[in-house]
Amino acid sequence: MGLGMHHGAWRFREGDPFDQTTPEYYRRIATTAERGGLHAVFLADTLDVSEERFERPNLGALDPAVVLALMAAHTERIGLVGTSSTTFNEPYNLARRFASLDALSRGRAGWNAVTTFVPAVAGNFGAGELPPHAERYARAAEFLDVVLGLWDSWEAEATVGDKAGNVYVDPARVHALNHRGPHFAVRGPATLPRSRQGRPVVFQAGASEGGRDLAARYADAVFTAQNTLPAAVAFRADIRRRAAAHGRDPDAVKILPGLLPIVGSTAAEAGARKERLDELRGYRPELEKLALRVGVPVDALELDAPLPFARIRENADFRGSHGFRDAAVALAEREGLTVRELLHANGGGHLQVVGTPDQVADTAATWFEAGAADGFNLMIDVLPSGLDAVVDEAVPRLRERCLFPRDYLGDTLRDHLGLPPVTEGHP
Amino acid sequence: MGLGMHHGAWRFREGDPFDQTTPEYYRRIATTAERGGLHAVFLADTLDVSEERFERPNLGALDPAVVLALMAAHTERIGLVGTSSTTFNEPYNLARRFASLDALSRGRAGWNAVTTFVPAVAGNFGAGELPPHAERYARAAEFLDVVLGLWDSWEAEATVGDKAGNVYVDPARVHALNHRGPHFAVRGPATLPRSRQGRPVVFQAGASEGGRDLAARYADAVFTAQNTLPAAVAFRADIRRRAAAHGRDPDAVKILPGLLPIVGSTAAEAGARKERLDELRGYRPELEKLALRVGVPVDALELDAPLPFARIRENADFRGSHGFRDAAVALAEREGLTVRELLHANGGGHLQVVGTPDQVADTAATWFEAGAADGFNLMIDVLPSGLDAVVDEAVPRLRERCLFPRDYLGDTLRDHLGLPPVTEGHP
Repeated sequence: MGLGMHHGAWRFREGDPFDQTTPEYYRRIATTAERGGLHAVFLADTLDVSEERFERPNLGALDPAVVLALMAAHTERIGLVGTSSTTFNEPYNLARRFASLDALSRGRAGWNAVTTFVPAVAGNFGAGELPPHAERYARAAEFLDVVLGLWDSWEAEATVGDKAGNVYVDPARVHALNHRGPHFAVRGPATLPRSRQGRPVVFQAGASEGGRDLAARYADAVFTAQNTLPAAVAFRADIRRRAAAHGRDPDAVKILPGLLPIVGSTAAEAGARKERLDELRGYRPELEKLALRVGVPVDALELDAPLPFARIRENADFRGSHGFRDAAVALAEREGLTVRELLHANGGGHLQVVGTPDQVADTAATWFEAGAADGFNLMIDVLPSGLDAVVDEAVPRLRERCLFPRDYLGDTLRDHLGLPPVTEGHP
Repeated sequence: MGLGMHHGAWRFREGDPFDQTTPEYYRRIATTAERGGLHAVFLADTLDVSEERFERPNLGALDPAVVLALMAAHTERIGLVGTSSTTFNEPYNLARRFASLDALSRGRAGWNAVTTFVPAVAGNFGAGELPPHAERYARAAEFLDVVLGLWDSWEAEATVGDKAGNVYVDPARVHALNHRGPHFAVRGPATLPRSRQGRPVVFQAGASEGGRDLAARYADAVFTAQNTLPAAVAFRADIRRRAAAHGRDPDAVKILPGLLPIVGSTAAEAGARKERLDELRGYRPELEKLALRVGVPVDALELDAPLPFARIRENADFRGSHGFRDAAVALAEREGLTVRELLHANGGGHLQVVGTPDQVADTAATWFEAGAADGFNLMIDVLPSGLDAVVDEAVPRLRERCLFPRDYLGDTLRDHLGLPPVTEGHP
């Protein structure tokens, strides 16, 4: 989140350039998003700043769970989703942290499970390199087993609370996990009873073979980088097919591509906003980010040449995000873009719409109707002005078309997403 | 915290027995404590419930950082201190979590560093046993080096924020840590600039040789279990002497014994409250807790006999809390108590005063004046009624005696504790 997804945000916006370290900032964002009826706030996780070269507006990234707990205090309905890494946490700690957020938000918490693809992060957790892709995903699958097992360790009826009879909890309805696997040994049970929504919603963001399989097995919702409609349609169909193959209802897995709207009241105004932002940012930090994402050194990219497709595909030991790489490559190939044009068109790796609120609504409607998305994870270019534009202008257009609910559908994040509460899990 | 320090609290109090899983409960506690001018809320950390046998009122313990972030949103002045283990966390994650809380509370955060002495916790973090005492403390010292190093990695002047000149942060004023030690390798820097108080306040709670040395080297404040005045005076003098030997100003280390007041408007009313609480609790859970704390099996304790002193002292591989063990032994020996009498007199391991607000104030005054304490960490018997009694009745008595400030001394936790802000650290 930082000060906005666009690298030029901190220079573009009014206000203190370190607003993102203050409580007022997060209160403003949470209450604005709730006023707009958005289903959730969704926070990334930054476990390193050295790579950012101190030029990024999200520098100073805070612990998502701490930010979300503060937001919980200032809101009543909106969901609160935090990203947290399966590679650099202990499952017992993470399960307790998100269960705590779920309790104190009365059932509005979600966890976006990621394996972390930024190489520099590894340097903050030992001297080694980022583990290879397959190793990260093997750990992630076991991590999810443990976390879900802990969240399901209390039956709904375990909380007796009989003061006269001196029975606080029914021990027969709280189950040790006794997990022992290659990565973890966790006895359990969880320290907390079930929340109002049963357990936090699980988001997953990974588009590789390992990521898709993980999503199909465990995720309630999938956050994905998609730059072209056909690829997005194929991705959603693939996840739904995989979920069905795992014996799940495909409608129980919501697919949410990222969408970065850059909004103006006219197309020209939106274009000017985009141009000004790009100008304030300069090319260098974006170029470095793109190089990292497609897995080549930065000097292999030339601004006025195409991407080095062959070199990108040859990289057998690629440890980065398959989703970001594939989305950038697909867009550049399909549209025949130079690197400079790709940087202009690619909204921080996500689908970008520069236009009026109606144009944003048009794109969302087209993607819904084509079966490319169950919803969108909105990337806001500049905070809070970009969020104000979405809430005050784009959301009303979607409501007019009956593509966005008039009000929250219930009290929990599962309600908002159309997912049933989880009432059991443990056999 | 749970529903109160006394094991009988959940049956004694009005209200839902699972109040401690709701946001309203923590809001009420935080705002009451702030109304009373208390310097901080101080939360323990529960990393296991199996040991609690589902009979404990603090069952359902939440992640302290999540609770404190919610409290930060509802308060303006009061400090927010959370316990977190050096044995079962990664220093990079912990440093970021408490720095985030410090930012979002505008300089009111504190971290109580503990090494964890409850054996069952180890089962949630691998199949092994709790590491031996010396190993835990060696890791803790290195952990503190890393965390303090990260918190000091940003110079106060690093946050330039020059929009026109395109300088967000001065990289020359943000320093990599490049720590490599036996337990951790952490490159850094931190993801966050300094807070208003410079960095979170460090609390430490350990009374063994290793714990005292750690406190003298690193701690701003020491939380300690003391049951007798002479032992408390000696403890405070010892920590101050050790701090001076490490080249620190002894006044920069505040000694805060635990104090459990059980308050009534008359001595008889207080006694009745205590008796009712003990009756509701029964002896078994207290006996198990005492056995764990003194390091003997529960069947080695007989209710109407003295503690088995010889057996307690023979235990060379004792991995528990030296502070709790020594305080219980000192009290039982000094007063010649049976186990039953010890359970009655020992406030969950801490100094206990059963009496009127004036009697509580008398004890606090005596301990202050004898040089046994710079302040107290109040253990509340039953929440929120026990806290109401402290805030509405005991604190005013201390104010009358000029032993408690009329208002907060400033805006940060360091201000409240009479500690200077930290403006540098990194060479």
